[in-house]
Amino acid sequence: MNDGIDYYTGSAFPLIKKRPYTQYFTFAKDGDFPLDSGRLFGPITLAYETYGRLNSERSNAVLIVHALTGDAHCASHGEDDPEKGWWEPLVGPGKVFDTRRYFVICSNVLGGCQGSTGPASYDPQTGKPYGMRFPVITIRDMVRAQKQLIDHLGIKRLHCVTGGSMGGAQTLTWAVEYPDMMDGIIAIAMPGRSSAQSIAYNEVMRRAIVTDPAWNGGDYYGTPGPINGLATARMLGMITYQSDESMTMKFGRDVMNATFADLFDFRTQFQVESYLHYQGRKLVERFDANTYLYLTRAIDLFDISLGYPSYDAALGQIKCLVQVIGVSSDILYPRQQQIEIARILKEQGKDVRYDEIESIYGHDGFLIEFDKMVPMLNTFLERLWKIRHGGNNNNYNKHSKERRGKKGEAAAGGAAEAEASVPATSAATD
Amino acid sequence: MNDGIDYYTGSAFPLIKKRPYTQYFTFAKDGDFPLDSGRLFGPITLAYETYGRLNSERSNAVLIVHALTGDAHCASHGEDDPEKGWWEPLVGPGKVFDTRRYFVICSNVLGGCQGSTGPASYDPQTGKPYGMRFPVITIRDMVRAQKQLIDHLGIKRLHCVTGGSMGGAQTLTWAVEYPDMMDGIIAIAMPGRSSAQSIAYNEVMRRAIVTDPAWNGGDYYGTPGPINGLATARMLGMITYQSDESMTMKFGRDVMNATFADLFDFRTQFQVESYLHYQGRKLVERFDANTYLYLTRAIDLFDISLGYPSYDAALGQIKCLVQVIGVSSDILYPRQQQIEIARILKEQGKDVRYDEIESIYGHDGFLIEFDKMVPMLNTFLERLWKIRHGGNNNNYNKHSKERRGKKGEAAAGGAAEAEASVPATSAATD
Repeated sequence: MNDGIDYYTGSAFPLIKKRPYTQYFTFAKDGDFPLDSGRLFGPITLAYETYGRLNSERSNAVLIVHALTGDAHCASHGEDDPEKGWWEPLVGPGKVFDTRRYFVICSNVLGGCQGSTGPASYDPQTGKPYGMRFPVITIRDMVRAQKQLIDHLGIKRLHCVTGGSMGGAQTLTWAVEYPDMMDGIIAIAMPGRSSAQSIAYNEVMRRAIVTDPAWNGGDYYGTPGPINGLATARMLGMITYQSDESMTMKFGRDVMNATFADLFDFRTQFQVESYLHYQGRKLVERFDANTYLYLTRAIDLFDISLGYPSYDAALGQIKCLVQVIGVSSDILYPRQQQIEIARILKEQGKDVRYDEIESIYGHDGFLIEFDKMVPMLNTFLERLWKIRHGGNNNNYNKHSKERRGKKGEAAAGGAAEAEASVPATSAATD
Repeated sequence: MNDGIDYYTGSAFPLIKKRPYTQYFTFAKDGDFPLDSGRLFGPITLAYETYGRLNSERSNAVLIVHALTGDAHCASHGEDDPEKGWWEPLVGPGKVFDTRRYFVICSNVLGGCQGSTGPASYDPQTGKPYGMRFPVITIRDMVRAQKQLIDHLGIKRLHCVTGGSMGGAQTLTWAVEYPDMMDGIIAIAMPGRSSAQSIAYNEVMRRAIVTDPAWNGGDYYGTPGPINGLATARMLGMITYQSDESMTMKFGRDVMNATFADLFDFRTQFQVESYLHYQGRKLVERFDANTYLYLTRAIDLFDISLGYPSYDAALGQIKCLVQVIGVSSDILYPRQQQIEIARILKEQGKDVRYDEIESIYGHDGFLIEFDKMVPMLNTFLERLWKIRHGGNNNNYNKHSKERRGKKGEAAAGGAAEAEASVPATSAATD
């Protein structure tokens, strides 16, 4: 049944970006994919993009997973692809995730609105969009769906899984749930479980959406939908992704095309207000409101310990090399939460290092501070590659030397290694 | 004109608390009160409450000013007054603001909804509530209105002005605008100007209100009004008043009367969500939405340097003794902002001390951590009293000794005095 499902007709969300390089994989066509909720669900389509080529040993695959409003387009596909991706400076030929070395896979999550099955998709049973009849999903459900994709691609073991924020949650989940399926992970700017404060922010954002009368219980497809609510949610999100310091630097108390006296009219805005309104409008042009509800709920439900005796026991499942990265000024998922993960793993004798993006940009640092990330990612990735592949394969000598050169440079610039760092002499897991 | 204005008929906000001890002062009956916007405005009624008695020298008056959703009822008026105030543990006989010593005045701000003239008040020109036709006001406008009240009470010089958050902004403004009118100020948990981040939070909260269709451009009186929008605003506010640590301690990831499995239904809530909803509903029962818009805008406009050559120059106006207090975990107005004020005043040779409430409770610390505040307030207030009144007047010896005893105790418990503290040997200003 439902073999013919096509993403172009498969979603009621009109603002899906139709990208030429996007591929689709559909599974659970008989509706038999088990979710954490106990529900069976399907069919499920995942939209994904790939970069570079899978080597003959199938040992060079890197899975990159995205944050809340991200998608499968982590980078452009060469010069004939005008659209930059959300990790453009990190993925491509000669970049950290060098697509001459790695086969990079980036998948839109289950529950997403950029080509994967989500609340805006048509329910084949009814022919109508799921809306709020879509099942509540978890980060683990997303990962188990991605696992189907990786199996489909014929990859038995990933070289690396990485992502930030909600992508960091997926990354950790991959390592805990499929400990034998990767050489290493790089988990960025995410705790092992959502805190009360981050749940609180998410609930205020959801509240802005569901109290917008245009939300209509989630059945708004074919109308503009809860654009005010979604914009307000995004405005709040944008504050939590930044920091007091970065907002002061960028906006201060400057006024938008007006004098201070004009502020006695409510219509006049401080620059920071204008910026937030702009960000709110922009998200409405590319994101589905129900999807926002489901993905933030998945983040709230995220607790790596679920189904394990304890938080430590869950992290104890991990076998691969681990790099945990925090951002010094992150107010949404403060660095202490990442340091805790690294500390626990270290106490368990795992091969783990903690690196910190020293930045004023807050949580968004992992989407901004590429110059600071490159050396710390390089350090980890070069070691990971060497452990898995030795120093000499794939005719990669020349390029590797270049990369080491870069790494040396950048290290002088200060790849922060905080207290939880582990010397690079630990045993390999492979 | 408008002599007969009566607060009971003067406001369209039906949820004003009608307290037996509230007094009203109406001025600018001819509409001639100049606002910072350049507009002339009036009549203006301020609701206020007083505690204790003004001494014959009129030298014992303490003005307490309130935060965003506060009111004139900072404490109960003895045993026959069942309603506790927002600074109940600090104001009363034998307390820090000892009403046997001080004459305490607490006034609802201009623009407020608890008896003072604000957006919910009837415009005598039209007989209708002002709504969004109310003028945009500033913290300085609030203070200049309070000055009228203080004049009316026959007080030439206040002994002390104090308040936290928006009350801290008023306190600083008092000292800058009327430097000869007080012996000292205690400014708590507020910078000298609103930061971009705090403006951003306020704008998201306003956005939640004005996108609620029930707001109706501010003309909602006689209807329930934008209760969803105001509740969402409050939910966000409550996050900024707390801290990651305090929310983790209070709520963690606990679920409300349900199991984790129930969370696969959107109707089931984490405790922190349930708490926020409760706080949202509670505010709707006591606060006017338009007032929320005007007061948050006043906070955004707050910049002590307005009309002065610089921030430092504005603070340079201050002549009285100053105590600045921050809360260590405040995410809304971080301690650095208070430390900066103290640092600048210290560099200017002022008599200033910085004390810090070491707390996990965030911004709300100044409404919670009374045990920690009492010793630091006592230290400042005892010195202030001595400088103004000498050690021996008002038959106050016995009580003063008791208080010193208390202070000693609490100091051992650790009244934090951070880097900007100034030894208590500086010259008096009186």
